[in-house]
Amino acid sequence: MKRKAIYPGSFDPITNGHLDVIERAAKLFDTVIVAVANNSAKSPLLDVSERKALVEEATGHVINLEIDTFDGLLVNYVAKRQGHAIVRGLRAVSDFEFEFQLALMNRQLNDTIETIFMMPKDRFTFLSSSIVKEIASLNGSIDAFVPAPVHRALKKKFDSGTQTETN
Amino acid sequence: MKRKAIYPGSFDPITNGHLDVIERAAKLFDTVIVAVANNSAKSPLLDVSERKALVEEATGHVINLEIDTFDGLLVNYVAKRQGHAIVRGLRAVSDFEFEFQLALMNRQLNDTIETIFMMPKDRFTFLSSSIVKEIASLNGSIDAFVPAPVHRALKKKFDSGTQTETN
Amino acid sequence: MKRKAIYPGSFDPITNGHLDVIERAAKLFDTVIVAVANNSAKSPLLDVSERKALVEEATGHVINLEIDTFDGLLVNYVAKRQGHAIVRGLRAVSDFEFEFQLALMNRQLNDTIETIFMMPKDRFTFLSSSIVKEIASLNGSIDAFVPAPVHRALKKKFDSGTQTETN
Amino acid sequence: MKRKAIYPGSFDPITNGHLDVIERAAKLFDTVIVAVANNSAKSPLLDVSERKALVEEATGHVINLEIDTFDGLLVNYVAKRQGHAIVRGLRAVSDFEFEFQLALMNRQLNDTIETIFMMPKDRFTFLSSSIVKEIASLNGSIDAFVPAPVHRALKKKFDSGTQTETN
Amino acid sequence: MKRKAIYPGSFDPITNGHLDVIERAAKLFDTVIVAVANNSAKSPLLDVSERKALVEEATGHVINLEIDTFDGLLVNYVAKRQGHAIVRGLRAVSDFEFEFQLALMNRQLNDTIETIFMMPKDRFTFLSSSIVKEIASLNGSIDAFVPAPVHRALKKKFDSGTQTETN
Amino acid sequence: MKRKAIYPGSFDPITNGHLDVIERAAKLFDTVIVAVANNSAKSPLLDVSERKALVEEATGHVINLEIDTFDGLLVNYVAKRQGHAIVRGLRAVSDFEFEFQLALMNRQLNDTIETIFMMPKDRFTFLSSSIVKEIASLNGSIDAFVPAPVHRALKKKFDSGTQTETN
Repeated sequence: MKRKAIYPGSFDPITNGHLDVIERAAKLFDTVIVAVANNSAKSPLLDVSERKALVEEATGHVINLEIDTFDGLLVNYVAKRQGHAIVRGLRAVSDFEFEFQLALMNRQLNDTIETIFMMPKDRFTFLSSSIVKEIASLNGSIDAFVPAPVHRALKKKFDSGTQTETN
Repeated sequence: MKRKAIYPGSFDPITNGHLDVIERAAKLFDTVIVAVANNSAKSPLLDVSERKALVEEATGHVINLEIDTFDGLLVNYVAKRQGHAIVRGLRAVSDFEFEFQLALMNRQLNDTIETIFMMPKDRFTFLSSSIVKEIASLNGSIDAFVPAPVHRALKKKFDSGTQTETN
Repeated sequence: MKRKAIYPGSFDPITNGHLDVIERAAKLFDTVIVAVANNSAKSPLLDVSERKALVEEATGHVINLEIDTFDGLLVNYVAKRQGHAIVRGLRAVSDFEFEFQLALMNRQLNDTIETIFMMPKDRFTFLSSSIVKEIASLNGSIDAFVPAPVHRALKKKFDSGTQTETN
Repeated sequence: MKRKAIYPGSFDPITNGHLDVIERAAKLFDTVIVAVANNSAKSPLLDVSERKALVEEATGHVINLEIDTFDGLLVNYVAKRQGHAIVRGLRAVSDFEFEFQLALMNRQLNDTIETIFMMPKDRFTFLSSSIVKEIASLNGSIDAFVPAPVHRALKKKFDSGTQTETN
Repeated sequence: MKRKAIYPGSFDPITNGHLDVIERAAKLFDTVIVAVANNSAKSPLLDVSERKALVEEATGHVINLEIDTFDGLLVNYVAKRQGHAIVRGLRAVSDFEFEFQLALMNRQLNDTIETIFMMPKDRFTFLSSSIVKEIASLNGSIDAFVPAPVHRALKKKFDSGTQTETN
Repeated sequence: MKRKAIYPGSFDPITNGHLDVIERAAKLFDTVIVAVANNSAKSPLLDVSERKALVEEATGHVINLEIDTFDGLLVNYVAKRQGHAIVRGLRAVSDFEFEFQLALMNRQLNDTIETIFMMPKDRFTFLSSSIVKEIASLNGSIDAFVPAPVHRALKKKFDSGTQTETN
């Protein structure tokens, strides 16, 4: 039996922590779909097509992967794609509580879909898309935290942003 | 590719929470090995053969399951059995921290083995083998918390235990 | 001596978790006042009179209850209403810390008022007004999470909201 | 309607933190029963009659109080005494998780009994019977942490204990 | 060897909890620099010069102190000022996780700078700049929570704020 | 002014995590005293002189260090040695709560002594003396977790331990 996992997220932008979870999940399932949430209500820094493109560039080396975007309820998307499991990364206690509430809610909405939690490398414990964006916005170096294409994309974003502001 | 997961624990005794995790894991992997830790240093209530027998009785309805016992380091056992992943149930923040330390340590000892965390039904959140043993020792009813064979085994244990004490 | 408890909150909207706490509190006190915070600064989805009306519809079966709204500091409201205790529901560790800080602050502001914490049913652990609003906004079903009048009110809200957006 | 709360614990020994919770609970209920657990399995420092006597000496000023001891399951004791609520003090996140599991389990065993959580004064946050015993055993001063009778009892205990050891 | 610590923050406004940490840090280091973050992106209530002035007024009695403001990455500021350590106050578990992620990130950005955590007095556990602003905005008394100059500044702010709104 | 910090612990045995904290603390204080607790009540694996000797062997490269042992209350020892601060390492939320209670209690016992918390390298997050002992007892490799002298000492201990058991 082939098993398919969905790894959903905003990926605004994808970090080395996300990448680490993707590589680990890809070893445990026949197919992993990285599902980039449209999430327009959260006013992401990058629009959904940029975010999807960066995930694609960063994960070219992983074979059994598909990159997609989705709208609406995650459980509906997972059902439509016939996924067996939702994969989520856990870094800290605060993640844990939020993720647990989400997983319990998703189970309530559709109890045929399982959520499994995976742990990124310990040196990525502190990493989040928000902290990466904050450092980039302050002109700090993010080389060690994100794949190269993301580095370039954020540099461009914040450089042009600064220009816009100063003009 | 066939994937094999190991679900290790003391199972002293197996509870409905463990059973729930076993059933969920069995849907995601081709084979799940429930690995009962010998753990003689922790002076369990039930010896390892009793604990294994109770897991077997409680899980007869799950097809792709194997029940085994192990000694020594978990990662060595998983490697010997060619497992791809270790499955652990998470109920609460305190679990989370302990399990994370364990998983990080196991990854340090053998980084080819992944740990994944699964969530039992919310109504099993409070359940643990210790709390079951404490209630049974106080003659409380544990019908709702453990499979029937465990209920019978603990009743026998504590009835005879009480006799021993009072004689 | 008659004892009166205040159960304050935004109730934006009331969920089955809130309802569960209300029913439990009503058994322990002679009167429970459900106090809907005006909170205009937090830009709630529903205005205070809608929120109060929904609490009233959902709690018609509880006898020793009064529904009210309040502005300003909670401790001042509790003192004015001669309440003996503030009741708060606790679901998770993150709740716990926030609620503790609030309760310590309230005690500092008025040390004659006690805060007591109650626990909703475990199957409501994941429930919050925010998560209900998010699901409703994505056209997910919230029947299992809120009283029927809330279900209808949110459906109307988000249906008309969508219309507004698309016109 | 008269309402009765049970405040159970080992009270090995009663601390100023326990006393603070007792005084707060006594304002919210018509009767509070302080229920000293026999707990012989936990090998307490003081036997149950000493622990009960110290609670009595420390709480003489609280009128609507009864001091009792109990064996076996707490919910059975509460039912026998026709208590409406179990009162527990919460100091920290670790308390919170343990207490929640206990309360959920007790609700499972008898769903007519409510558990409410109260918060001792913030300057008692660090206080526990164990830490008091450890300080006393190292000849540190515990005046600020326990009622006077407990101070005297522990002093006697550890003075004689030391003698026993050195003889 | 002289040692210099940096105590960074928004100080919007400085509370008695901050003041307590400042006094404690000043005993352990030869110089402490209180570094007020410009943080214009977070739309603080008080602008950076007001916040700096209030820190100065509140800390006049501490000798080995310097008050400064900074922009951009904290680690760059600390390096420029040749600080040996970053000092942060910890009050609660939620603080702890956030602060840990920040400290790990800062160590990644510059591993010659150490972060140390200090604990304010337990009666300041519940204090935060946000809670102080909320109470002040509801006309509650904040005398016990902030130094006198802050009290006056917030009173003026919220009084004039109300005027503005009603005109 | 010269400043002296005390780093207390059981060090049963010293791990690379402890060593990391020692090296960090030694940069912030003029002298650091590593204070090995006698703790005979906790039945440590290694006696206090072995534990002290291992700390000495492992820390030979740190200049401003003194290794000592102590009995009784930590605050009394710190006062006797005229220490300005107690240093403690923090790894996880569970550490945090326990350490906070301890620090608050110590402050209560002697409010002239400050406790500061430091963070070991993230790859030592999972490390504890107990986990090291458990792995060593199961013949796992602990090379990566402890200084070389500890490795040798534990190997000897568990080899002879096993012999004793099997003879």
